[in-house]
Amino acid sequence: MDHPEHHPGDDAAPQDARKATDVGGNTDDFDLSQPVMEELTGSLPGNKRIRIIRPEHPVFRHISEGTLEATERSYVPQDPLGKFTARIKHFVIGSPIPTGKAGQERLTKFKALAVLSSDAISSVAYATEAILINLVAAGSGHLGLAFPISMVIIALLTVVAISYRQTIPAYPNGGGSYIVAKDNLGTTVGLVAAAALLIDYVLNVAVSVSAGVLNLASLFGGLSPYIVPIGVTLVVLITLVNLRGVRESGTFFAFPTYFFVVTAMLLILIGVVKAFVFHHQPFIAEFTPPVQAIEPLSLFLILRSFATGCSAMTGVEAISNGIPAFQKPETRNAVITLTWMAVILGTLFFGITVLTMTYGVEANASSNPTVVAQLAMKVFTGPLVFLFPVFQIATLGILTLSAETSYSDFPRLASLLARDRFLPSQFAFRGDRLAFSVGIIFLAILASTLLIIFKGDTNRLINLFAIGVFISFTLSQAGMVRHWYRLRAQDKTWRRSMLINGAGATTTALVAIVISVTKFVEGAWIVVLLIPCIVLMFKAIHRHYEHYERERTSDIPLNPHDIHHRIIVPVNRLDRASLQSLSYARSISQHVTVVHVAIDEDDVNRVKATWVQWQKQLPEEEETHLLIIESPYRSLLRPLLAYIDTIKRFHPNETLTIILPEYIVVHWWEYFLHNQNGLRLKAALFFRPGIVVIDIPEHLRDRYQADVVRSTHNS
Amino acid sequence: MDHPEHHPGDDAAPQDARKATDVGGNTDDFDLSQPVMEELTGSLPGNKRIRIIRPEHPVFRHISEGTLEATERSYVPQDPLGKFTARIKHFVIGSPIPTGKAGQERLTKFKALAVLSSDAISSVAYATEAILINLVAAGSGHLGLAFPISMVIIALLTVVAISYRQTIPAYPNGGGSYIVAKDNLGTTVGLVAAAALLIDYVLNVAVSVSAGVLNLASLFGGLSPYIVPIGVTLVVLITLVNLRGVRESGTFFAFPTYFFVVTAMLLILIGVVKAFVFHHQPFIAEFTPPVQAIEPLSLFLILRSFATGCSAMTGVEAISNGIPAFQKPETRNAVITLTWMAVILGTLFFGITVLTMTYGVEANASSNPTVVAQLAMKVFTGPLVFLFPVFQIATLGILTLSAETSYSDFPRLASLLARDRFLPSQFAFRGDRLAFSVGIIFLAILASTLLIIFKGDTNRLINLFAIGVFISFTLSQAGMVRHWYRLRAQDKTWRRSMLINGAGATTTALVAIVISVTKFVEGAWIVVLLIPCIVLMFKAIHRHYEHYERERTSDIPLNPHDIHHRIIVPVNRLDRASLQSLSYARSISQHVTVVHVAIDEDDVNRVKATWVQWQKQLPEEEETHLLIIESPYRSLLRPLLAYIDTIKRFHPNETLTIILPEYIVVHWWEYFLHNQNGLRLKAALFFRPGIVVIDIPEHLRDRYQADVVRSTHNS
Repeated sequence: MDHPEHHPGDDAAPQDARKATDVGGNTDDFDLSQPVMEELTGSLPGNKRIRIIRPEHPVFRHISEGTLEATERSYVPQDPLGKFTARIKHFVIGSPIPTGKAGQERLTKFKALAVLSSDAISSVAYATEAILINLVAAGSGHLGLAFPISMVIIALLTVVAISYRQTIPAYPNGGGSYIVAKDNLGTTVGLVAAAALLIDYVLNVAVSVSAGVLNLASLFGGLSPYIVPIGVTLVVLITLVNLRGVRESGTFFAFPTYFFVVTAMLLILIGVVKAFVFHHQPFIAEFTPPVQAIEPLSLFLILRSFATGCSAMTGVEAISNGIPAFQKPETRNAVITLTWMAVILGTLFFGITVLTMTYGVEANASSNPTVVAQLAMKVFTGPLVFLFPVFQIATLGILTLSAETSYSDFPRLASLLARDRFLPSQFAFRGDRLAFSVGIIFLAILASTLLIIFKGDTNRLINLFAIGVFISFTLSQAGMVRHWYRLRAQDKTWRRSMLINGAGATTTALVAIVISVTKFVEGAWIVVLLIPCIVLMFKAIHRHYEHYERERTSDIPLNPHDIHHRIIVPVNRLDRASLQSLSYARSISQHVTVVHVAIDEDDVNRVKATWVQWQKQLPEEEETHLLIIESPYRSLLRPLLAYIDTIKRFHPNETLTIILPEYIVVHWWEYFLHNQNGLRLKAALFFRPGIVVIDIPEHLRDRYQADVVRSTHNS
Repeated sequence: MDHPEHHPGDDAAPQDARKATDVGGNTDDFDLSQPVMEELTGSLPGNKRIRIIRPEHPVFRHISEGTLEATERSYVPQDPLGKFTARIKHFVIGSPIPTGKAGQERLTKFKALAVLSSDAISSVAYATEAILINLVAAGSGHLGLAFPISMVIIALLTVVAISYRQTIPAYPNGGGSYIVAKDNLGTTVGLVAAAALLIDYVLNVAVSVSAGVLNLASLFGGLSPYIVPIGVTLVVLITLVNLRGVRESGTFFAFPTYFFVVTAMLLILIGVVKAFVFHHQPFIAEFTPPVQAIEPLSLFLILRSFATGCSAMTGVEAISNGIPAFQKPETRNAVITLTWMAVILGTLFFGITVLTMTYGVEANASSNPTVVAQLAMKVFTGPLVFLFPVFQIATLGILTLSAETSYSDFPRLASLLARDRFLPSQFAFRGDRLAFSVGIIFLAILASTLLIIFKGDTNRLINLFAIGVFISFTLSQAGMVRHWYRLRAQDKTWRRSMLINGAGATTTALVAIVISVTKFVEGAWIVVLLIPCIVLMFKAIHRHYEHYERERTSDIPLNPHDIHHRIIVPVNRLDRASLQSLSYARSISQHVTVVHVAIDEDDVNRVKATWVQWQKQLPEEEETHLLIIESPYRSLLRPLLAYIDTIKRFHPNETLTIILPEYIVVHWWEYFLHNQNGLRLKAALFFRPGIVVIDIPEHLRDRYQADVVRSTHNS
């Protein structure tokens, strides 16, 4: 007989299966009364070798020729630990959602405004304060400049919003800066935009959570020492909610956003009525002790105030990134939501800045109480005093949850980068609840790290903030300019569109430069330095994947007929298990060498004696050899490795396979009773290309199993 | 063609080899100008399939038909880290010694006395003190009782030594209590003796090191707070010396032993001359303030003093255990050494006890200064004062190094137990220097743990001590009684021999009982409890090994013709590397299923399209199928595992093999760029008996290698 191999007829399979039900024993996870799996070989042209499994099966559902669908049952872990962790996971983040239901996980305009605008809208809680803190350096006298600065920022917001209204219909599948810049200005520019955005998303989580906790601390003074742990706890909670999926987080986050919008509107309304109708408050509060100037009023100071105030604009790009999360029609809904967001943001920012001037609120270097808190304190007096804590809680809510915008966009951008092979592929996998779990968890880790490093100090964090957003604004708008120019043949209105995006690009570029320059020393340098590093990382990852996909190979010939097998079976002693390994080896090839490393003379003699006995069982013509390696220095591993390396070196055109036993341990302590030479050999072979390793699992045959084996042999 | 396999003629091998020298590149560890390995198939009757490699080869030496010897070169690690650690190891414990040189590692009588008697002889440094500390509880008046107690102990020593002089020739291969008891009284009794001895060996290391450090602290008072760290450091040093091998430790330890014997003899000589010739000192020092009795003098107190004093006898059995370490003729040398040891021990113990009485030295509960230190202080006065520190250093030396006896015997006993499968087999392996490294290191860890737990307190440790030794004495002597009775037909002097050993057994049994009872509360209960626990552990280990050897099996038929292969090749995408895995699978069997787990529709279509292309390359009749499993919950692993489990369940009579790619990572960070599904799958399959796993190593083909592949294909 030339080749020791048998193919059981496929028709025999169901019978085997039924035997298994009688013998197998382990039936707890399988209803064997259900129709058993039956195998057929289809005979369709083209894919005739695709296997079909039918009829319906508890673990797999038959879809089409050669295609199964795994049912929910196939995801249930069988081991107790796995079951337990799965149960915990389902409790915390909910039961898994199949990919097919992705459409149902979309957001309505109402929810989308909450999720995607919370970042932008929440900025009003700190943007005014950011301007004042900078201006106060020149003394109280110049605080009035906050008003014109705010006006410029609102104008800027208008320009950017109009620009993005054009981007959304042009890129209906998500027109984030990365996509737009990459499409129109090349990959590197796209990656710069992506890096800038990713940095800003992480900063946004840290800033908004720390600002939220600070506001909470204005309400409850005792919390001040615990700002960092409270911040990290909030990050963990937001992360868990996000792992539950897009739709659930939309529901969860809608209330705080609208609650803040309503209370802030109330604050502005009541403040305006009190100040301008009842003249309840002087235009500039005379009783405030004037602050001494620590530096002269300079253009630089004004620009720095402006730059810091621009943090109000972060989050404006979120909607254009998040178009795929909208319900259909996506672009229309996105444009409407964007408009609403800009209007709300502009109104709130304008109102709060005006009232801050009116009520003579001054920024407090420690941010405790914050400017908006002071304002609320002054506005909500007398019978309205109960509104003060309500507003504070609303502020805390919107600030904390404005992190949600990052949680929505960071994982999505990371998944786009992963899809394009600029980030590890894990970022592109959707988790149990269709959320990009890896991105969400990664964002949480980075933001928590920032909170810990900066000790939850909003004003220090804010110095790093906003550059990324304006760089990405600029690149995205510049990309759109190029986009319209390219489409000049098809689109009649290309000049107008180009002009709008051009204006956007120019202004945001100016702002980006202003921010970088004015905040460079305070921390902007970190971001300016980080962006090229991240871009280089993207490119290194990309190169690796490209190389990996193109050049991933093994030393095995593509055609099985070109494979010349050479098999080494290292054995400790010649027992039944070794004979089984040898049997497997000989079923592959007759070119088998059994190697025994002997550490003393007795060992050599014992193995030789057993081998002579075995000879009687081997057919005459088989090329199966025994090689004994005497190891005078008693190492079992090194001589074996040296032998394998030598054989590999001298027979480069053969496919070398090592057969190793893998002992299945029942109790953990049994691990210590066996020297781990097999494992160590495997580890050593792991780094040797071109050597195939076959693990033969060995186990203890218990009495029950031994009986089964006997009965099957008899039948 | 029915089976895709080729066997290259063996005569082609050298040519391949030479090709490898041109192509391989990596020649740094191989002198290829040497004659290359040549393979021949012998045609001797009986073992005709044993492979021969000749002529001489740098890594292997040809010994006989089918047997190679690994040369020193095969032990040299090839990787930089391995080379570095090997160099460090060689520096610390010396370069490896081949097994063949084991004979040269034997001990001369001179060195053997040092190594094997240091324990016994060192006891004189603390035995007298141990007696006095117990007696002083009844007040100073009864300290004179120390003299008769010592006399009884010396008589006991004589009986035991005479008994052992009979054991040595009867068990020339090492007549430790374990062997003698097991041979004559059954395995369980042997294991009790072994457990008792192992406990005492560990205690001996802890006691002697802590006593040594205490003596050092009498010399340099400032060391007292550092007793534990100094003790542990000493243990580490002794361990390192022992890892260097038997002969080197013999050389190392000879000096301190003889140095102590000489200085102690000097102390006794000068002390006796001063006291009895010059009457320099009153018989009982009148100036010592009398100590108040805290308990009445009772038989129990006297027995407890005796029991504690019996610690002087520990180590007497060491020589009978260590016979194989002696140079030839082993038994004669061992008997002579034993006699010398008993004489030296008796003389020193008697001398020191008498002088302690004479000079009125009193035990000090804190052992600081120790009794022998006080004695030396009183003897070495005037012009001899320089001898005091010399004697103290000698005491420190012998005490610390008396641990050496345990280091010699513990690993040897553990190796005997391992050989008999009562301890993990690692204890039976000889390390680089032929020492039983695992036992040495294990002893060091246990002794250090004791030192730390008992904070280096000799007097607390000594309470646990000596029971084990006397239990093993008793069992060994009792075993000898049985031995002589068995040999009554052959040996005419059996009655006399039996009487001697019987006397030994009876007295040591009495002592064992006395020690257990009198020191029970102080700590002996720990040992009494520990011995049965250890015996149970021995038996559990033995059962495991027996079961493992008898029932270790895999699900593979013993005959390759009975193997029905079924191979599953999970693939991520259908690329060159997947085709190579498939090729390997098809070289084993045509019964191959390629499984792709798809997470979306695009994925399904892409794979199907590639498969149709591949069809063209597969011969018509091959039974190679593609199965696509759609995974709506996006898990790649669970559906695959569910499929594998299902196939395994329904085809219990087929040998299921999974082919997995193993990607060889070049840089550590690349690990994060690939999801570890392969590794996770392997881990999951690890616990499933009956599923064979084949690892195909995949690597990146660099340009150089790509060229090589091309040129070999062309040639």
